[in-house]
Amino acid sequence: MNWMQIDRIIRQALIEDIGHRDITTDNLIPPDHQSQGVFYVKQEGVVAGIQVAERVFQLLDPEIDFTVLKDDGELVLEGEEIARISGRTRTLLTGERVSLNFLQHMSGIATKTYDLVDRVRHFPVKIVDTRKTVPGLRILEKYAVRVGGGHNHRFGLFDGVLIKDNHIRAAGGIAEAVHTIKRNISHLTRVEVEVENLEQLREALAAGADVILLDNMDPEIMKEAVRINGGRAILEASGGITQDTLVEVAKTGVDLISMGALTHSAMALDISFDIIRLR
Amino acid sequence: MNWMQIDRIIRQALIEDIGHRDITTDNLIPPDHQSQGVFYVKQEGVVAGIQVAERVFQLLDPEIDFTVLKDDGELVLEGEEIARISGRTRTLLTGERVSLNFLQHMSGIATKTYDLVDRVRHFPVKIVDTRKTVPGLRILEKYAVRVGGGHNHRFGLFDGVLIKDNHIRAAGGIAEAVHTIKRNISHLTRVEVEVENLEQLREALAAGADVILLDNMDPEIMKEAVRINGGRAILEASGGITQDTLVEVAKTGVDLISMGALTHSAMALDISFDIIRLR
Amino acid sequence: MNWMQIDRIIRQALIEDIGHRDITTDNLIPPDHQSQGVFYVKQEGVVAGIQVAERVFQLLDPEIDFTVLKDDGELVLEGEEIARISGRTRTLLTGERVSLNFLQHMSGIATKTYDLVDRVRHFPVKIVDTRKTVPGLRILEKYAVRVGGGHNHRFGLFDGVLIKDNHIRAAGGIAEAVHTIKRNISHLTRVEVEVENLEQLREALAAGADVILLDNMDPEIMKEAVRINGGRAILEASGGITQDTLVEVAKTGVDLISMGALTHSAMALDISFDIIRLR
Amino acid sequence: MNWMQIDRIIRQALIEDIGHRDITTDNLIPPDHQSQGVFYVKQEGVVAGIQVAERVFQLLDPEIDFTVLKDDGELVLEGEEIARISGRTRTLLTGERVSLNFLQHMSGIATKTYDLVDRVRHFPVKIVDTRKTVPGLRILEKYAVRVGGGHNHRFGLFDGVLIKDNHIRAAGGIAEAVHTIKRNISHLTRVEVEVENLEQLREALAAGADVILLDNMDPEIMKEAVRINGGRAILEASGGITQDTLVEVAKTGVDLISMGALTHSAMALDISFDIIRLR
Amino acid sequence: MNWMQIDRIIRQALIEDIGHRDITTDNLIPPDHQSQGVFYVKQEGVVAGIQVAERVFQLLDPEIDFTVLKDDGELVLEGEEIARISGRTRTLLTGERVSLNFLQHMSGIATKTYDLVDRVRHFPVKIVDTRKTVPGLRILEKYAVRVGGGHNHRFGLFDGVLIKDNHIRAAGGIAEAVHTIKRNISHLTRVEVEVENLEQLREALAAGADVILLDNMDPEIMKEAVRINGGRAILEASGGITQDTLVEVAKTGVDLISMGALTHSAMALDISFDIIRLR
Amino acid sequence: MNWMQIDRIIRQALIEDIGHRDITTDNLIPPDHQSQGVFYVKQEGVVAGIQVAERVFQLLDPEIDFTVLKDDGELVLEGEEIARISGRTRTLLTGERVSLNFLQHMSGIATKTYDLVDRVRHFPVKIVDTRKTVPGLRILEKYAVRVGGGHNHRFGLFDGVLIKDNHIRAAGGIAEAVHTIKRNISHLTRVEVEVENLEQLREALAAGADVILLDNMDPEIMKEAVRINGGRAILEASGGITQDTLVEVAKTGVDLISMGALTHSAMALDISFDIIRLR
Repeated sequence: MNWMQIDRIIRQALIEDIGHRDITTDNLIPPDHQSQGVFYVKQEGVVAGIQVAERVFQLLDPEIDFTVLKDDGELVLEGEEIARISGRTRTLLTGERVSLNFLQHMSGIATKTYDLVDRVRHFPVKIVDTRKTVPGLRILEKYAVRVGGGHNHRFGLFDGVLIKDNHIRAAGGIAEAVHTIKRNISHLTRVEVEVENLEQLREALAAGADVILLDNMDPEIMKEAVRINGGRAILEASGGITQDTLVEVAKTGVDLISMGALTHSAMALDISFDIIRLR
Repeated sequence: MNWMQIDRIIRQALIEDIGHRDITTDNLIPPDHQSQGVFYVKQEGVVAGIQVAERVFQLLDPEIDFTVLKDDGELVLEGEEIARISGRTRTLLTGERVSLNFLQHMSGIATKTYDLVDRVRHFPVKIVDTRKTVPGLRILEKYAVRVGGGHNHRFGLFDGVLIKDNHIRAAGGIAEAVHTIKRNISHLTRVEVEVENLEQLREALAAGADVILLDNMDPEIMKEAVRINGGRAILEASGGITQDTLVEVAKTGVDLISMGALTHSAMALDISFDIIRLR
Repeated sequence: MNWMQIDRIIRQALIEDIGHRDITTDNLIPPDHQSQGVFYVKQEGVVAGIQVAERVFQLLDPEIDFTVLKDDGELVLEGEEIARISGRTRTLLTGERVSLNFLQHMSGIATKTYDLVDRVRHFPVKIVDTRKTVPGLRILEKYAVRVGGGHNHRFGLFDGVLIKDNHIRAAGGIAEAVHTIKRNISHLTRVEVEVENLEQLREALAAGADVILLDNMDPEIMKEAVRINGGRAILEASGGITQDTLVEVAKTGVDLISMGALTHSAMALDISFDIIRLR
Repeated sequence: MNWMQIDRIIRQALIEDIGHRDITTDNLIPPDHQSQGVFYVKQEGVVAGIQVAERVFQLLDPEIDFTVLKDDGELVLEGEEIARISGRTRTLLTGERVSLNFLQHMSGIATKTYDLVDRVRHFPVKIVDTRKTVPGLRILEKYAVRVGGGHNHRFGLFDGVLIKDNHIRAAGGIAEAVHTIKRNISHLTRVEVEVENLEQLREALAAGADVILLDNMDPEIMKEAVRINGGRAILEASGGITQDTLVEVAKTGVDLISMGALTHSAMALDISFDIIRLR
Repeated sequence: MNWMQIDRIIRQALIEDIGHRDITTDNLIPPDHQSQGVFYVKQEGVVAGIQVAERVFQLLDPEIDFTVLKDDGELVLEGEEIARISGRTRTLLTGERVSLNFLQHMSGIATKTYDLVDRVRHFPVKIVDTRKTVPGLRILEKYAVRVGGGHNHRFGLFDGVLIKDNHIRAAGGIAEAVHTIKRNISHLTRVEVEVENLEQLREALAAGADVILLDNMDPEIMKEAVRINGGRAILEASGGITQDTLVEVAKTGVDLISMGALTHSAMALDISFDIIRLR
Repeated sequence: MNWMQIDRIIRQALIEDIGHRDITTDNLIPPDHQSQGVFYVKQEGVVAGIQVAERVFQLLDPEIDFTVLKDDGELVLEGEEIARISGRTRTLLTGERVSLNFLQHMSGIATKTYDLVDRVRHFPVKIVDTRKTVPGLRILEKYAVRVGGGHNHRFGLFDGVLIKDNHIRAAGGIAEAVHTIKRNISHLTRVEVEVENLEQLREALAAGADVILLDNMDPEIMKEAVRINGGRAILEASGGITQDTLVEVAKTGVDLISMGALTHSAMALDISFDIIRLR
């Protein structure tokens, strides 16, 4: 990840929370008072964002000492410690909430991803994310998906082509759209076409689409799509897939299953921060 | 809300998603091609963020025409249209996802808040949020809580005092902490003290705390706390309260119930955007 | 204070002054030339901003060595040294003016505040600042007021309620305004109402105002207001109070006296920077 | 002036004051409530910054209507109206303080400058400012000096050469310093040398200095300096000149008198904003 | 293109050139003085950046009126007018240079690209750019390449994989590198491998590389590479290709020829701006 | 140079190139893998920007070790090493291109400047740059001109007066324009007037212009201009001067020759970066 981008995100989160100052801590804690703190999880899950949690404190105070006990990607059980920190008590108290907000959000996404990936681990299918992310945090959310064992779809509108229904209509058909795009984009970018039925699938294959998104299709139809495709294009199942229908979709033989819920509806992982000793 | 702040948030979200350009749309849709689009909900809920959704498009293209059909705070049923938009097809296709990401996230929070507020509507208690928000979006998330009928706790570390266990220890006791704070902060800011048991409650009351946070207390203990308080301080119940225990807590007579899940674990409301006519 | 905010302010001040480069120093002083410098005051006063003065140089050159001799809040006499610095001559010459501009401005405010606070030191009254600050420097100016022994009113429009005449009229009366506000704002924020006469004072008290601002009242009327209030609300005297009328106002028994002149019209404290040895 | 720079300054001032929102106004004033406001001065002075005052409201709300009654540079008497504004009551109440903070600060500088310039109006001398400005506001403060009839010295370290004592020592003498600088800087930039006595003056003249700053000299010595100079270099008197000694310095025949107090110690001009009609 | 990004680039260029103000124009031209201006080319070429040139003036002054006579991509002859502008004389004089700097730079790139593309118009080969762009202007330079008839390689390190020698060594061989990458990156991104000889070419083909960069190869070797490839991967010729060797490389049958000189060494197109009438 | 400005430029260049992450390097190179790299030139030239090249890597990774072998201003021959770097392989691979883009661009300008300066080294004339720079990079380009032995004209519109034809017409003549300007600008700024013929030259001299730009004049006319001037004003030749006509212009006796091509059309110096050892 590009830490120049992440530092900017963290700084904004700190300014959002601290404003001009922490009026409780600044008035009660002497500047040189030292403490130790510990992060521990209160439910089973996958850690993601531990370096981000650390960086929050370091941007406030470069002298802080942070020890990672469980790194990103590790499975942790309820009660396990994941990091320890020592330094100025003011820094610990002022940075605690923002640090946890990142860590809980990212670990929540990694945990949800891990759970879904695990359900289809016996199938040759990848779970991929979408652009349905929380505004401003995509770089961190897509990272958390990878930490949880998922894969990333395109990052944004700039690094992948996805031709949807409306593009097709405006371009005059699937073939025209695919040809126009292929003439114009970088040779390093593949072309994905969204189709709603098997007829469109055949058109997209004929036009040379590299990837085909099967939008909201019934598993039976998807199976037929896999058969028709015969390995030519990469097939992505998308739309309305839940943890309950996931295995059924995986069984159809598609290559990718994309799920917006990975990022837009993951519950935060319950993580606490305790100050364990006040020197 | 301060729209200068919100515009900055929206611009960053757009830059995050669009990068240098939308390589699909820019290559397929003629610049002057016009369309109409419609936002509609796919599940019952409370709308929040409709002006933010509009602003996304306007920052991309000031000539866009956006009509709000359901304003923030309105209850909507599955299938209901909430806004219509017309203008350049490029703008609609490029802005659609970011606009939905804000709208779904904010409406999800408003809907969850509304549901919880509704469960305790017969009690004189307020549901309040916390600082457990998604980094960078607090202004929008706290707004969504208000839209859903909840109330806001302090915005950040700068506009309210909350003295926690560690502050108390460093200050030398509840009384010392409260007195020190009262000497130093603005006369417009109340002082809240977090207590874990009834003894601390009595200390906090004696010290003149304006608000007392009852941390992770049993409902029975909370009832006793309400009795001891006798209306002197404002009492806030906090910690581990779920939708299942909410009513029981409300019955104790506390004034406020704060719940981090309002913001950190609300599911996105399912909202779609369809382009309904391509001229 | 939040140093992330202050660093931003200092960086802008440096860019404002240096632009693309210091054409005098860069052309005349060899890059490695070392010097020592000393800050000393040329009139009696209270030091404020010495860490800001230091930070100016450190942002230009992290290798600079800065020794504080008189810390913020210390009273200094004419001619006293307050800090010493050593390092690259270029850094000293290029940073000198911006460093002094902060230090003189902040020390001027602290000195003026100290003088006014001292005049009423035998009364149980606090001198508080206002929002009449120099645009962009409020965090530093309010800090300087605290350094001088004064207290801060709200920081801005976001962290305190002050209901003025126009709010009251639009809301339909003092009672309505106070009730509406109390329903909507955070439980940690007090409500202040501005009144112009004793009738309004009684209305505000009846409505449950936490703080009442007595606007431009005659000391005789203020005394009566203190009597009517009977300790219920906090009373703030404001409007047209000068150093000459200050004691008379303090005698009325009000709790707070706010003065815009603390920040908008303090004279800079005369401080010089000399380079004492060129190695 | 470069309004892109000024807009940035105003936006920061608004964010500083409003934060996430104006909790008083937003809770009490309906969004569409309209009002009229008037700015009037409460003491005689020179207006400066009226377009900045206007811009504050326009950045909050482009639909505001602002009428300038007294433009920058006009002399106004106590009680005179200087501008009228109409539009949303929320905008008026939220923007009022920041608008006044700019207007009072800039008008204070223009008024002080006007007063000093007026004292020496019968002498062929210019009153010029210095770099002793409030950090971040130099562009506005230097403008206010011009509005008041003063002139600007260099804007910063980048657009004018001023060789001081320390530069001279490091360069090995006045002649060496002047020659080195002349070899290296743009042909459009003049070279000013600071001198403390007549010997240094002669050296500077011999070296070809374009401008010579007479630092803290006695008026008698300055007269002699003017004689020695014989019109070759531009002579600037600087250091410790007050309104009381100004005329005496002007009489010496120097070309320029620079005074830091123009910007660092001007009192704010007393200006009020009244909302005169609530529709 | 994403105009939010371009506006940021233009604003910085204007601030760089104007600083606090245009001291010549502001002092000589009355604010309401109106003029007309015309852009015309002084040498044959391809126009690129005409909307950027327009935007420079609009950011300074939204009331400016700008008429495009030759749009991006049009071939123009010496002396031809390409745009007309009317509005405040101050805006025209202050914005002229920055507007021209963008327009000349972008048109220079488009013109150079057009010339090279034209030389190989009878071959089925695309001319593509590289990441050898002027820092900060890549979005505009890559656009200018497209305007000139060239194609874009990846925009940056984030939207395309290019495995070079050092990556291969660290990964343990071409096969390992390609497999690792394919497991981890988005399914929409192709994998390009840089090879220096035919043996590496065979390895890359065997590993399933989508695109192969033939680095600094002799045309004879390239021909052999084309034969070996047999249409499996896309072949890109790169390294040291000049306008003199271009046709020879095109004849080898490669699909793409990339040339850094398109962006890093294009001469500015000579364009002038005349103010033709001062009203 | 002001490194706060340069750091901002470098950060933007890195964000432009890296985006959210380097998908090739991050997926193939282990985080702790170490390497050494070397910069060497592939053609004769003058180095400029070596500290900028270093800073690119340091902003990515403060632990990088960079050794300058040839400093700015040194003449280097084909094949010579100019810097060595060691540290994380990821940092080297990710930063390489941006570092080279700065270094090649700046060295290209220094080399071209050096060549032109060398052609007129026997004449008492300075080669100066113009405002025809690549938007956003002026601070670096003007520095590169100085490194190559050239001199800088004004940096922008704020630090030098250049009265052109249109200014003259609007002001009512050369004399009026010069007088107005001299009344209003800083005493440290000289006034330059652009003239097209000898009549205008005489007017400008009579008006007291400090510098006169001879626009597109024939060498014969320039010689006459030098004679008429008789050493009173500084004379700058400008417009259409190429390396072929440079010496002829120098012979006329003008003081300065300004050439836009120094910055807008310099070819990048060919510099390579090799990773020489992978530990």
